[in-house]
Amino acid sequence: MRRALALSALGLGATSPNPVVGCVVLDASGEVAGEGWHQRAGGPHAEVNALRAAGGRARGGTALVTLEPCNHTGRTGPCAQALIEAGVARVVYAVSDPNPAATGGAETLRAAGISVEQGLCEAEAAEGNAAWLTSVRLGRPHVTWKYAATLDGRIAAADGTSRWITSAEARADVHRLRAECDAVVVGSGTQRADDPHLAVRGVAGAVQPLRVVVDTSGTAVTPGARVLDDAAPTLIAVADDVTPAVTAETVRLPRADGGLDVPALLDALHTRGVRSVLLEGGPTLAGAFVAAGAVDRVVGYLAPALLGAGPPALAGGGITTITQALRLDVSEIRRLGPDLRITATLVAKEH
Amino acid sequence: MRRALALSALGLGATSPNPVVGCVVLDASGEVAGEGWHQRAGGPHAEVNALRAAGGRARGGTALVTLEPCNHTGRTGPCAQALIEAGVARVVYAVSDPNPAATGGAETLRAAGISVEQGLCEAEAAEGNAAWLTSVRLGRPHVTWKYAATLDGRIAAADGTSRWITSAEARADVHRLRAECDAVVVGSGTQRADDPHLAVRGVAGAVQPLRVVVDTSGTAVTPGARVLDDAAPTLIAVADDVTPAVTAETVRLPRADGGLDVPALLDALHTRGVRSVLLEGGPTLAGAFVAAGAVDRVVGYLAPALLGAGPPALAGGGITTITQALRLDVSEIRRLGPDLRITATLVAKEH
Ligand SMILES: NC(=O)c1ccc[n+]([C@@H]2O[C@H](COP(=O)([O-])OP(=O)(O)OC[C@H]3O[C@@H](n4cnc5c(N)ncnc54)[C@H](OP(=O)(O)O)[C@@H]3O)[C@@H](O)[C@H]2O)c1
Ligand SMILES: NC(=O)c1ccc[n+]([C@@H]2O[C@H](COP(=O)([O-])OP(=O)(O)OC[C@H]3O[C@@H](n4cnc5c(N)ncnc54)[C@H](OP(=O)(O)O)[C@@H]3O)[C@@H](O)[C@H]2O)c1
Repeated sequence: MRRALALSALGLGATSPNPVVGCVVLDASGEVAGEGWHQRAGGPHAEVNALRAAGGRARGGTALVTLEPCNHTGRTGPCAQALIEAGVARVVYAVSDPNPAATGGAETLRAAGISVEQGLCEAEAAEGNAAWLTSVRLGRPHVTWKYAATLDGRIAAADGTSRWITSAEARADVHRLRAECDAVVVGSGTQRADDPHLAVRGVAGAVQPLRVVVDTSGTAVTPGARVLDDAAPTLIAVADDVTPAVTAETVRLPRADGGLDVPALLDALHTRGVRSVLLEGGPTLAGAFVAAGAVDRVVGYLAPALLGAGPPALAGGGITTITQALRLDVSEIRRLGPDLRITATLVAKEH
Repeated sequence: MRRALALSALGLGATSPNPVVGCVVLDASGEVAGEGWHQRAGGPHAEVNALRAAGGRARGGTALVTLEPCNHTGRTGPCAQALIEAGVARVVYAVSDPNPAATGGAETLRAAGISVEQGLCEAEAAEGNAAWLTSVRLGRPHVTWKYAATLDGRIAAADGTSRWITSAEARADVHRLRAECDAVVVGSGTQRADDPHLAVRGVAGAVQPLRVVVDTSGTAVTPGARVLDDAAPTLIAVADDVTPAVTAETVRLPRADGGLDVPALLDALHTRGVRSVLLEGGPTLAGAFVAAGAVDRVVGYLAPALLGAGPPALAGGGITTITQALRLDVSEIRRLGPDLRITATLVAKEH
């Protein structure tokens, strides 16, 4: 199953609106007969790829899958049926499929006389598919807020200078994060201050994310802006009564406190098939996401430096007293050159 | 030598104004014959303790010492002489003694025909004696600034509430830090807001640090303040023309921007034998220490929580642009319950 999990991760950033899935097929004697993963939406599912690789050796064997095999006929046939036809004797999967349209695969398999087990490496598999699982459960994309700050929580110095707070290693890692997400989002403040490019560079085989600028009045993205090049698709979110200053794909959204309505933005992205969002700031827009309860994971790049003045990493968010603090769990700490990367996830809530 | 280093660390917080030193004596066949460490100022040095434990077995043996054996007769006799008299054949030490009054031990040993080597585990030994080495080199105490903050660098919520940002594990760890330092320092703002106790609790055998409140006008420490109990000694630093509101040991210092002169404060503490200071805040006083170039090490307790508003960990410090940021090296990261402890030290400068 660990191998299946590793295979599934190869699909991160490329399978939306589908989950990432990995599959290993063992023959009747327990030898690996075939491996596969879901490589891109519309392409064959992991089980189908693994069964193809295994050929006749799948008969009487075992399929290890990171997600419950699907039961519905979407752009590809149901995987449960493919497993039955291949004659596997046993299916072991990690996480159940919460998607109402696809669930029921396990029952179909059992009805066909296949032995079915669930739960192996469930936590790791859920973590690997966090974005997709969140999007199915909440009906909106999974949101990772990324920031780069000093130890004392500043994202720039008092005079606004911020190149470079973090190291080249940390900045390269951000491209990996972008490659794993379907959309990268910034506010008009960041657009104005930094004219960011937001596309993925230096990650082999990466699918480019949708670049999204939240620009209520449609004035921050100006002709020649770097997000308007053809390195990746771009979407400008503006208020319903606004036409942006540039020609670009546009989504019109209702206004709310501080700018545009964050849930409406996430809804619009979800409708476009975006299952995971990397929110790259700045602090004001990140505060609005926190206030909307729309931050699922935080990735902080911390430089071991002190500034003592300058804008804070997060501003607003509507939290006024300590008991309201947004509590997270540290899921990983890594050193990147001189810097630290701290990944923290929202403490699991029942819905 | 690793064992000698571990022994030396047992003296942390109790040996000032002396360094921490550990010593292991091997007999002629290389077996451990005796161990010792410097336990408290005025008590026997590490070498003497180890030689006593080894007795006659030291003859022809090797002494492993974390610091160059001293050459001067202070409150105890010179260790170089004791090693010669015990008849050891070889002395290996980690770090040279930069103290002009004590140096020359290695030469004395060599002149007596003993084989002498330096440099084994030098970096670790220097790290273990960082406070003392800094104080000898700079003529002021080594300063560790400690803070507890959220991931976004806030030490309290917008309404001032801060109990508890960090976990019980992190708070217990602060007592260990206090026990390793000679003095704990807070500003009048923290004194007023928190009425802190500042003594060490829950660390077996700890020597209590000197509690220091930097209270320019002598009005923040009021009768009944917790720092006035007899759990530990207390010193109130006030301006030259001020008499504090309470009866307590007082030091009068010149005024400077923002309050009292930080170098003068450190000088006064150094004169009292303080070699290591734990600066417990708040942000304003910490900013003054940063501006004075008087922060050698930072220990940040980071809670995986977001606030988005509230006072920042560090305020002031005189840094206005990114190239002036105070750059540190991350020397350690540890998890303490749900929280992280990040230790960072000033990038080594040549003096
Ligand atoms: N170190 C880092 O990790 C990092 C990352 C990103 C940015 N930054 C820095 O952050 C600074 C910019 O930050 P910023 O806070 O000014 O800009 P920002 O967060 O990028 O953008 C804020 C703007 O977004 C618009 N917006 C739209 N809907 C909103 C909503 N619901 N709530 C809040 N705002 C909404 C608002 O302007 P309109 O309504 O007028 O459009 C608002 O002023 C720059 O200096 C940049 O370099 C640092
Ligand atoms: N989370 C943490 O790690 C932590 C730690 C400590 C405190 N805190 C919080 O921090 C808050 C208090 O912070 P604060 O910044 O107001 O107080 P502070 O830094 O403790 O004290 C500042 C005061 O110290 C005096 N001072 C003396 N010499 C100074 C100098 N050279 N430079 C600057 N100040 C000097 C000044 O007042 P006078 O000149 O009038 O005496 C100044 O107003 C409290 O809410 C407390 O809970 C948090």
